[in-house]
Amino acid sequence: MTDSILHTGSLDAVETENALPEPGTAPGDLARLSINRWSLRTTPIQEFLEATAAAGIGKVGLWRQDVEEVGLDALRRRTDDAGLHVTSLCRGGFLTASDPAERKAALEDNRRAIEETVGLGAPTLVMVVGGITREDKDLGAARARVAEGIAELAPYAEDAGITLSLEPMHPMFGADRAVLSTTHQALDVAEQVASPAVGVVVDTYHVWWDPQLASAIERAAQADRLLCYQVCDWNLPLAAEPLYSRGYMGDGFIDFPAITTLIKAAGYTGDIEVEIFNEEVWADPAPTALATIADRYRQLVLPHA
Amino acid sequence: MTDSILHTGSLDAVETENALPEPGTAPGDLARLSINRWSLRTTPIQEFLEATAAAGIGKVGLWRQDVEEVGLDALRRRTDDAGLHVTSLCRGGFLTASDPAERKAALEDNRRAIEETVGLGAPTLVMVVGGITREDKDLGAARARVAEGIAELAPYAEDAGITLSLEPMHPMFGADRAVLSTTHQALDVAEQVASPAVGVVVDTYHVWWDPQLASAIERAAQADRLLCYQVCDWNLPLAAEPLYSRGYMGDGFIDFPAITTLIKAAGYTGDIEVEIFNEEVWADPAPTALATIADRYRQLVLPHA
Repeated sequence: MTDSILHTGSLDAVETENALPEPGTAPGDLARLSINRWSLRTTPIQEFLEATAAAGIGKVGLWRQDVEEVGLDALRRRTDDAGLHVTSLCRGGFLTASDPAERKAALEDNRRAIEETVGLGAPTLVMVVGGITREDKDLGAARARVAEGIAELAPYAEDAGITLSLEPMHPMFGADRAVLSTTHQALDVAEQVASPAVGVVVDTYHVWWDPQLASAIERAAQADRLLCYQVCDWNLPLAAEPLYSRGYMGDGFIDFPAITTLIKAAGYTGDIEVEIFNEEVWADPAPTALATIADRYRQLVLPHA
Repeated sequence: MTDSILHTGSLDAVETENALPEPGTAPGDLARLSINRWSLRTTPIQEFLEATAAAGIGKVGLWRQDVEEVGLDALRRRTDDAGLHVTSLCRGGFLTASDPAERKAALEDNRRAIEETVGLGAPTLVMVVGGITREDKDLGAARARVAEGIAELAPYAEDAGITLSLEPMHPMFGADRAVLSTTHQALDVAEQVASPAVGVVVDTYHVWWDPQLASAIERAAQADRLLCYQVCDWNLPLAAEPLYSRGYMGDGFIDFPAITTLIKAAGYTGDIEVEIFNEEVWADPAPTALATIADRYRQLVLPHA
């Protein structure tokens, strides 16, 4: 499933004068590297695309905010023009509402997100499944509603030729963002739905602590449901907004060689997307941030991938 | 194991004029309630003990800082004089150092903590097992050192007649405080050590999100290793110091009836310790905080316990 989104780097392509590389065909050792748009969130979108391409990186992960800002067709043209392949769209999900009207609206919004994923030529839509409320704290019921929602969306994703990447999120987001907290749990939902279009994204920030991570990664790959590998570090002390404690690989506590070795051993050969939310990173000029990302990727991730 | 620390409340005891109740024999519906000292951390220790007893609560959980401040024998006298039973001592642990000298010092300190637990007449020492460092991010090795350390301390605890309550902590503390993140994982360590003196504490703040919580609680109880039940809520947004997001039951997102029902179904009849770290709670006068705790306990925990 993931092989279809893997483009092998070709030095020939970029060395031919006056010829742009095919989208996503970055040369050499950065061939699998993708830059998530929120890693450079404060850089204007066009500058982000150009700076990424100029850094010799051929892939980006985009957000629905970008689609809203630029327009779907225009955004696709811009990524094509920059020679960039889109590896994922963030984010669908938020499927835990019990109110029928809210639920219907969420499903409709997810169908639009699937269309946007197709429009950008991205293989997968990242799903942040939603949380609970102070009024309804029943985690089990919320998780069941997630599974129902995914089951409703899966045929639509299948027809569209894209996948839904369920994102288990760090348990500190278990109340407000995602009632799926572990990779095994996300795989349980995927298996329950039983669609080839449903899998998981392994994001180091969310899962590094999980004592069952090794078996979950292996299980995901065996079931052909390991759709995306996202990396960034776990920085301490936690930022006031805990989402923003995502750091450059090497700045925090995550053992990237160990986790990346598990990913490789499971047979994953797809993209590796760097997704950092961090106010200090956003303060770096785009070329500096991209160079740091590429350096840390070469140092801590690539040798084990 | 836990039954030995349970004192049934007797109204007769407190209604007899001029007779103090036996320590820990609070009357009626607060018989199982214990107030962890850090719930009223800013109240001076003597005032804390007297206010707790005056609120009709017969049990407290204490900290080693209290022992250091007051002295072991004097602290025991003060709790006895107030008619209070000590349900736990916080905290031992911090067993992840790989440096031999640090490791030796940690084990010695834990032996002192065991002695203090005995001195206070408390049945169990709560173990916060320690984290990793930026220099050594190997979680597996750190977890193995925890198991080794617990194995060294277990015979000492057995001889002393107390238990070691391994505390799985919320994964947001996985790097800096505790490499044990789930109850099943803590039980794995307990079973590996294979001492009747080693079990787990289930603290709602740390484990509420765990999709395997029900099976873990059942497993703990079946193995006679469910040593302590601590409650407080999960407040959002997270405080700048995430430890301080512990809230009065009912203020946050935790489903206390659901978790307490699991605890009861597993057969637990021991103490229920309220442990809140929260700057707003610390700003409340002690009698107000204690009355709020008792109210919320009666409302959300007791009916299901």
